[in-house]
Amino acid sequence: MPTFPASPLRGGERTGTPAWEPWGVNPADSTFLRACRRQPVEHTPVWFMRQAGRSLPEYLAVREGVPMLTACATPDLIVEITMQPVRRYGVDAAIFFSDIVVPLKAIGVDLDIKPGVGPVIADPIRSPEALAVLRDLEPGDVPYVTEAIGSLVKELGEVPLIGFAGAPFTLASYLIEGGPSKNHDHTKAMMYGRPDLWHALMTRLTDITLAYLRVQAAAGASALQLFDSWVGAVAPDDYRTFVLPHTSRIFAGLADLGVPRIHFGVGTGELLGLLGEAGADVVGVDWRVPLDEAARRVGPGRALQGNLDPAILLAPWEVVAPRARDILARGRAAEGHVFNLGHGVLPSTDPDQLARLTALVHEESAR
Amino acid sequence: MPTFPASPLRGGERTGTPAWEPWGVNPADSTFLRACRRQPVEHTPVWFMRQAGRSLPEYLAVREGVPMLTACATPDLIVEITMQPVRRYGVDAAIFFSDIVVPLKAIGVDLDIKPGVGPVIADPIRSPEALAVLRDLEPGDVPYVTEAIGSLVKELGEVPLIGFAGAPFTLASYLIEGGPSKNHDHTKAMMYGRPDLWHALMTRLTDITLAYLRVQAAAGASALQLFDSWVGAVAPDDYRTFVLPHTSRIFAGLADLGVPRIHFGVGTGELLGLLGEAGADVVGVDWRVPLDEAARRVGPGRALQGNLDPAILLAPWEVVAPRARDILARGRAAEGHVFNLGHGVLPSTDPDQLARLTALVHEESAR
Repeated sequence: MPTFPASPLRGGERTGTPAWEPWGVNPADSTFLRACRRQPVEHTPVWFMRQAGRSLPEYLAVREGVPMLTACATPDLIVEITMQPVRRYGVDAAIFFSDIVVPLKAIGVDLDIKPGVGPVIADPIRSPEALAVLRDLEPGDVPYVTEAIGSLVKELGEVPLIGFAGAPFTLASYLIEGGPSKNHDHTKAMMYGRPDLWHALMTRLTDITLAYLRVQAAAGASALQLFDSWVGAVAPDDYRTFVLPHTSRIFAGLADLGVPRIHFGVGTGELLGLLGEAGADVVGVDWRVPLDEAARRVGPGRALQGNLDPAILLAPWEVVAPRARDILARGRAAEGHVFNLGHGVLPSTDPDQLARLTALVHEESAR
Repeated sequence: MPTFPASPLRGGERTGTPAWEPWGVNPADSTFLRACRRQPVEHTPVWFMRQAGRSLPEYLAVREGVPMLTACATPDLIVEITMQPVRRYGVDAAIFFSDIVVPLKAIGVDLDIKPGVGPVIADPIRSPEALAVLRDLEPGDVPYVTEAIGSLVKELGEVPLIGFAGAPFTLASYLIEGGPSKNHDHTKAMMYGRPDLWHALMTRLTDITLAYLRVQAAAGASALQLFDSWVGAVAPDDYRTFVLPHTSRIFAGLADLGVPRIHFGVGTGELLGLLGEAGADVVGVDWRVPLDEAARRVGPGRALQGNLDPAILLAPWEVVAPRARDILARGRAAEGHVFNLGHGVLPSTDPDQLARLTALVHEESAR
């Protein structure tokens, strides 16, 4: 097991007795949640998409011989893997360890996650009849989610837990293509060519996603992120017609919970305004659009999350530091800023880089 | 073999005696080249990226049992495959049948194009020593290119031929990763972490690309397109630092030839201004940015090319037609417009859709 980093990680203190008395043990007043709500913060909060997994040796150790979907259905493993980056980096939020296809698997869709490939669907959905497999999700379908989140909330103390789900477009792409896709050919063929079937599928996925996110909030998640990873493949007018009605319904359906709602996709420079318009409190930005420009596109009343190119972390620290500072500076143009990468941590990332980055964000932004 | 489409394809006439007397037999006054030069045209010219290949049954027939790199080095096949879409669709320009790795193969890089995968490099370039393989390209390295273009120019008559090359960033990505890549991890690691090596590699690729494009122009190509397919993965500031100096040198090095220079990449909404700034006469636009907005980003003094989502062609014609009309209407905001797709023709595309689309563009824009 790697040693705990010796650098002056502010958050490292949290793994022992909570040292941050101002926040108490309830995450409601945490820096992360305050930034999401566009309230004043003492420092810019930071977490990393895919912080739990892949690049961490302690993750690879506990996952050895355990298939991904098994790990996602085993509360003890979920808790351990979710906690690992919190212990190591002292990030300001934990994100529930899972995968976006978990709710689909839970309602009986025949799928698997193949190493080096991704989700693979046994029977791609391309007809009205195929929709029948997409029944409603009940809390009883995902008992391991409820149990793991319950345990995590106790263990995390004042560190907030982010729950998440895949957004309908991205789930639809996997279901229609049968797996990962470069061009989303079949997905768009249905979207453009069979809009009735498309909207029926998206409606089913919206119901499932909404129910799944509500399960996570009921179990204690303090924030909810909707990952629409592949929606950047869609032009803005098409987003408005084929996607926005569904994502809007999800965010509206979460409004009564009072938890911040985060919305993220890759390559969404043209869609940033619409991602906010869908009803998100926080809009995630990849590395292609500087945060000050993103703030202009998203408009007032929303916080931003992002946006260091994850590949930058493969360069020496001397290259990383000034870029992180630049992002903090540009992030001041937003009403609230949660520091993150512009996409998930790359598997070859040195965890020490993320530890130093966490410290830098905390120290620089507190000045 | 499919029958030649019976629809009133203006360009279909060209396969017999040239019927367009105003243009004579020299492509210099062709609609395509005039649009590239932002001169008045009688109708909007149209061609399709990847029009030669993949979706055409006559292409699959001549390629049967012939590896891609063999086809790219066989003048008779190059000519036949390049002519196929001109005969079938009556498009306003032919594009030389080849692959962006052909010049690398020609100078001795150990690579292959694997079906269903793409270019695969035997020894990825990740050290200064590895650069040695990238020697200068001489016309004698690609005799089949010179021969094929010579034959094509005669056979095409008044239809202009577009030569092309891969841009240094995209070539660098294949060389560094060793093949196609989702995140360009190694590429960016070198770009950010070893800028000296990065620029040395880009300089070598720029020399090779420039020489290769000049060979094509010398052989008779009437326009040159630089494909930087994957550069949309780079943020604007990084494009300016790590890519622009090299693409600028290519376009400057072609200026004396007097042929229109086209610059295209996917997901380049944030880079459109810089793609023009690099020195292109025509900036290609994918489907994510409407052409009127693209005209604003690119600014005056350049024509635009694009930008129908290739996936739209998988939908019924009733869906395609209004979208094509919308693109023609928005294209009027540009000083010159060459109709095209926003990326290459998808393999599952019905050729009849492209035939109807060609006819629609010609008819609607001539009104």
